[in-house]
Amino acid sequence: MKKLLLLALFCLPLLAFSQTKPYLTLADAQRISDAAEAKAKAEGWNVVIAILDDGGHLISLRKMDGVQIGSVEVAQAKAKSAVFFKRSTKIFEDAMKGEGGSRIATLPNAVGVEGGLPIFKDGIIVGAIGISGVTSAQDGIIAQAGVEAYQ
Amino acid sequence: MKKLLLLALFCLPLLAFSQTKPYLTLADAQRISDAAEAKAKAEGWNVVIAILDDGGHLISLRKMDGVQIGSVEVAQAKAKSAVFFKRSTKIFEDAMKGEGGSRIATLPNAVGVEGGLPIFKDGIIVGAIGISGVTSAQDGIIAQAGVEAYQ
Amino acid sequence: MKKLLLLALFCLPLLAFSQTKPYLTLADAQRISDAAEAKAKAEGWNVVIAILDDGGHLISLRKMDGVQIGSVEVAQAKAKSAVFFKRSTKIFEDAMKGEGGSRIATLPNAVGVEGGLPIFKDGIIVGAIGISGVTSAQDGIIAQAGVEAYQ
Amino acid sequence: MKKLLLLALFCLPLLAFSQTKPYLTLADAQRISDAAEAKAKAEGWNVVIAILDDGGHLISLRKMDGVQIGSVEVAQAKAKSAVFFKRSTKIFEDAMKGEGGSRIATLPNAVGVEGGLPIFKDGIIVGAIGISGVTSAQDGIIAQAGVEAYQ
Repeated sequence: MKKLLLLALFCLPLLAFSQTKPYLTLADAQRISDAAEAKAKAEGWNVVIAILDDGGHLISLRKMDGVQIGSVEVAQAKAKSAVFFKRSTKIFEDAMKGEGGSRIATLPNAVGVEGGLPIFKDGIIVGAIGISGVTSAQDGIIAQAGVEAYQ
Repeated sequence: MKKLLLLALFCLPLLAFSQTKPYLTLADAQRISDAAEAKAKAEGWNVVIAILDDGGHLISLRKMDGVQIGSVEVAQAKAKSAVFFKRSTKIFEDAMKGEGGSRIATLPNAVGVEGGLPIFKDGIIVGAIGISGVTSAQDGIIAQAGVEAYQ
Repeated sequence: MKKLLLLALFCLPLLAFSQTKPYLTLADAQRISDAAEAKAKAEGWNVVIAILDDGGHLISLRKMDGVQIGSVEVAQAKAKSAVFFKRSTKIFEDAMKGEGGSRIATLPNAVGVEGGLPIFKDGIIVGAIGISGVTSAQDGIIAQAGVEAYQ
Repeated sequence: MKKLLLLALFCLPLLAFSQTKPYLTLADAQRISDAAEAKAKAEGWNVVIAILDDGGHLISLRKMDGVQIGSVEVAQAKAKSAVFFKRSTKIFEDAMKGEGGSRIATLPNAVGVEGGLPIFKDGIIVGAIGISGVTSAQDGIIAQAGVEAYQ
């Protein structure tokens, strides 16, 4: 036990010194998308599921049959907003309901419609999920199902 | 004394005739950024600091560690709004809280979130500072610290 | 010695399991920029120096006095091309000199002018430097000076 | 004479210290445009005449009757290229005729068609003129006529 502690103490600075950050793999993105798609199917909802990395670039996108083509860009925009601002697009949606809430619309890349969620690993942002296709509240439920599959 | 007055009178029309305007140098931009960064550090806030020239072009940008990447564009957008409209983005933020305030969102290059301040020299606009990363009120405090280092 | 080896073997899987990647800090970006600026000054060249992270987002930008404003966007575009395609923009420049080389101009985010270099840490891309202001070959020399300050 | 020299020596540092740059007024832009329009009429050519300031923003634009609407943006793009890169768009046109010349097309804001000329005052860029509507060589002739009216 004491030796394990020593080993841990020895490895810790190595990790710290290496100045690294966690990231999403395609396998992660597929697991998250599978969970989101399963939830969507269970509810009978068709959506676009977009997974972005921590720089806002697509790792994975799936458009279920019959979804409006506008949702392809909307799902990506929601995910981009989530990763760019490290917060749920629901937070912007709520802010936009308050006095002067339309100011959010003047911020580049901000989206004020639920359905975009950031994805964190050990408190560090690694990417985001964006859902579009049904109501924004329903999009949010699917996004949440996706995020939960990662943690 | 009388001679100095004569000299001044002689130089004045030269200055007037030369039809010139003041401008920011990189040294100015770095001094302004240093003051903003010092204030941010003193408060424990991490932000992006953007300094634009009088045409809205970047002279200097710094992104402190850990700031959401969305702030890179937001800081520039706030500064651009400040230099394009010769006013604090706080003025647009206040206007957006009034009746029909969302009309501001339809103006190209207008940003309605505090944190962008124009920079003047002798009453002439020479550029702007844009801050993003914490709350808009806090962004505004850092921007002000930057501007004060120039005057 | 044998114990050190055991320690290393013990730490290796930890690092592997943690699935992380290195990244650039503002301090890194400033050190790289300082080296590039020093080289530019030593040569008597004025340039824009842009440092991007691994997602193509600005960490730092400096525009030396008197540089054409077009270089502000060009420096960023070169760096973006370098990080997006993990290669020097010189490689695209050379490719564009061959038969049908103009096809490169149809690739989103590709820039075929020397002066953009990717920055690697342990073989992993962590960002890029983009230089613009003098000839493309001179821009490339300054970019190289910046990269060398990191390794 | 000696006194005048002394006066000049006295005023010089004042001008230097004030760190200013010349700029174009609307009156300047109109004089330049008048000359360009007069040349165009004399030749029987109809064109768009755009005058930008040193930040690349419009001061004046005139579209003569019957000109293709595409020329409205082209004239501005030529002038923007001229002011952003402090050179005639003819220089980019010539460069694009050489080996690998298409690389110019990957530089943001570069236009490789004659008709855009930068405007300088005492060696400092103050703006640009952009002409579009006839052949690029003819556009260039009109641009030249405009610039000559300023100096």
